[in-house]
Amino acid sequence: MNYVKSCFNLILLLFALIIALPTLRSQSSPRVNGDRMMEHLTAMAAIGKDPAGGYSRVAYSEADRQGREYVMGLMRAAGLTVSIDAAGNISGRRAGSDPGLPVLVIGSHVDSVPQGGNYDGVVGSLGAVEVAQALAEGHMALRHPLEVLIFQNEEGGLQGSRAISGELREEDLNQATRSGKTLREGIAFIGGDPTHLTGVRRKAGDIFAYLELHIEQGGTLATEKIDIGVVEGIVGNHRWDVTIEGVANHAGTTPMNQRHDALLAAARFVEAVNRIVTSIPGRQVGTVGKIQAIPGAYNVVPGKVILGLDVRDLDEARIDMLFGKIRDEAEQIAQASGTKFSFQQIVADRPALSDPRLRQLITNSAKQLNLTTKLLASGATHDAQSMARFAPSGMIFIPSIGGISHSPEEFSRPQDVVNGANVLLRTVLRLDSQNW
Amino acid sequence: MNYVKSCFNLILLLFALIIALPTLRSQSSPRVNGDRMMEHLTAMAAIGKDPAGGYSRVAYSEADRQGREYVMGLMRAAGLTVSIDAAGNISGRRAGSDPGLPVLVIGSHVDSVPQGGNYDGVVGSLGAVEVAQALAEGHMALRHPLEVLIFQNEEGGLQGSRAISGELREEDLNQATRSGKTLREGIAFIGGDPTHLTGVRRKAGDIFAYLELHIEQGGTLATEKIDIGVVEGIVGNHRWDVTIEGVANHAGTTPMNQRHDALLAAARFVEAVNRIVTSIPGRQVGTVGKIQAIPGAYNVVPGKVILGLDVRDLDEARIDMLFGKIRDEAEQIAQASGTKFSFQQIVADRPALSDPRLRQLITNSAKQLNLTTKLLASGATHDAQSMARFAPSGMIFIPSIGGISHSPEEFSRPQDVVNGANVLLRTVLRLDSQNW
Repeated sequence: MNYVKSCFNLILLLFALIIALPTLRSQSSPRVNGDRMMEHLTAMAAIGKDPAGGYSRVAYSEADRQGREYVMGLMRAAGLTVSIDAAGNISGRRAGSDPGLPVLVIGSHVDSVPQGGNYDGVVGSLGAVEVAQALAEGHMALRHPLEVLIFQNEEGGLQGSRAISGELREEDLNQATRSGKTLREGIAFIGGDPTHLTGVRRKAGDIFAYLELHIEQGGTLATEKIDIGVVEGIVGNHRWDVTIEGVANHAGTTPMNQRHDALLAAARFVEAVNRIVTSIPGRQVGTVGKIQAIPGAYNVVPGKVILGLDVRDLDEARIDMLFGKIRDEAEQIAQASGTKFSFQQIVADRPALSDPRLRQLITNSAKQLNLTTKLLASGATHDAQSMARFAPSGMIFIPSIGGISHSPEEFSRPQDVVNGANVLLRTVLRLDSQNW
Repeated sequence: MNYVKSCFNLILLLFALIIALPTLRSQSSPRVNGDRMMEHLTAMAAIGKDPAGGYSRVAYSEADRQGREYVMGLMRAAGLTVSIDAAGNISGRRAGSDPGLPVLVIGSHVDSVPQGGNYDGVVGSLGAVEVAQALAEGHMALRHPLEVLIFQNEEGGLQGSRAISGELREEDLNQATRSGKTLREGIAFIGGDPTHLTGVRRKAGDIFAYLELHIEQGGTLATEKIDIGVVEGIVGNHRWDVTIEGVANHAGTTPMNQRHDALLAAARFVEAVNRIVTSIPGRQVGTVGKIQAIPGAYNVVPGKVILGLDVRDLDEARIDMLFGKIRDEAEQIAQASGTKFSFQQIVADRPALSDPRLRQLITNSAKQLNLTTKLLASGATHDAQSMARFAPSGMIFIPSIGGISHSPEEFSRPQDVVNGANVLLRTVLRLDSQNW
């Protein structure tokens, strides 16, 4: 009888263990469902596929609206409470066990550039939803409330996240956007309420931390065969319109030594920008991406050139130092060629550093998954830049093959996509236990 | 009685001398009427004055038609028999004493570029008419018939003179022109007959010689304070579209050492063109006047650049030699930057040398007037270029202040304008006595 009882108890214990095992396993080694996430990525690729190549889910277009609908469906399936704020951002929330704690936010965007790829923004958005679903399926309670935020119109100037950080101004709403709609019309089109934008703004303390998963867009991780990029910050970006004035004249009748050729001076300037930016070690970049020669005819020595200068670095003082050298060299070119340079600054975005504590949590999460990491700067802008203005923020990068982005050739390997989501999940769990 | 008769004969002789003197004087020291010529130049300036600045007598415009009417009136007043040929060129003829001799042609054009000056073409046209009027007033007979030719649409590609040299092809007639009309419509508009162009063509031997007075358009004569330029020839002009292919990429995320920047390669090319063209003594010129960076955005490393290269010299072999060096250096730039250069030649105008005998006659005529001369090349194209293909041709240049042309600031001093017409007159008289 004792023997039967013991045996019965043992069977009960085994049953209990079999029932409890998935939960125990996921608690100790939580993972996202990689296959499901890749299915979601494939489904998203059917929305806004451009006959001319790539994907066009330009903010406020019909394809953008469809992409947003798809993500809201996934959010609901993951048990999130979905709403659209007055700025048009999509919010999916899950309660925390301690209602007094500030919200832990994860997210990204689903709008794209025209003929862009299916990874920029989408990996981070679907990764955040997948993390919420994995937490729900694993019955993993968090102390903090969790919010998945899908920012609207990232590609057109971080409009959604700038509304949240309070940087979007009333007068900006009249700006034209790539969709053809004004910003005001676009926000209304996706379900926002442009008359109540101020209610969207969040302040320091409202958000415990913001985490964003994203493709690198550069080629560093892929080239160096590193699994995960831990973002040190988003570089500052200064831009200038540079005008070079010479003297327009007949290309046939004006002797070489009597010319004041604005394009020749511009050529020396373009070469100087490259030389100065590469003359010191570091990750700073400097680019002349646009140029116009006036009048711009085969047979006229150009009298005027207007070009665009873009300089970026994580350290604003370094941007200032580089620009100082560039301006000094422009002055020398002007004197030697009898031309005149003038600089008009049109963009002065400050660098946005990530929170060092978040960098450490991301690094530790990746190590636990046996993934290699590298600390790097983001040369591109992200919604995390707006969020870092008032909340501890961090970003997780995965490799972009060939460093190609904003292009139909944009690609990240499925294993890297899933790795990124798993690092995001682990970091959320580690972060939730912090008492900052 | 004898005394009375002798006295009477003496008085008769004196009377005959008084009557003959103006003719004798003008034969020995013939001059144009400078004041009258300057009045005509001023009257022309009232036609096509552009409210936006300068003069716009663009070929086939209403102002062009009015300018032509004005010149035809002056021609008739100078005793010329006026007609318009099938190509729309204005011809004013005066018989010669030996009807078997070929015609001696002088002329230029009265059409202008948009917002051009009142000297380019006009000085030579009014100068030629003034020479005809001075010959008529001076009762100076020429052995050769004299023809004043006002070519139509010089600025739009030497269309009138190319019809005379046989270079204007039937298919060219469908080309759009700056007036908005096709070439065919334009020729009809100014009184030509585009269906009978072949009858306009002249052959070797039809024309004894062609002489054209023109402003220099360059700054050599004015800078060196020389009165008259004796044109050695009109330079050959070769043009290429140069395409540079690199890799377009994100200006923020692409490290400097991973770029294939087409605009940086283009800048090195522009600098190389200038360096190569100025590396040897001579009057050759090389210009990059137009440039386009693609996609052409502040934040994109340019993936492609298309630019225009223009090389000119009086010696075609030198143009070939310079282009060879330019192409070699482009290859080096391409290899160093991981870009690709390709060249498509779009213009290959051969040099047109003036007749050495005409150069000598012009030089001697100027010397007789105590004017300084300099042998120089014309960097700009002229109708003399078409004429030189089949007839001995020569050009007389007067100084352009500041070397400025095709601009409202185009200016030549009245004394220089009149000097030029006087050199033209003397050269016509000297030329008429040649037995080539």
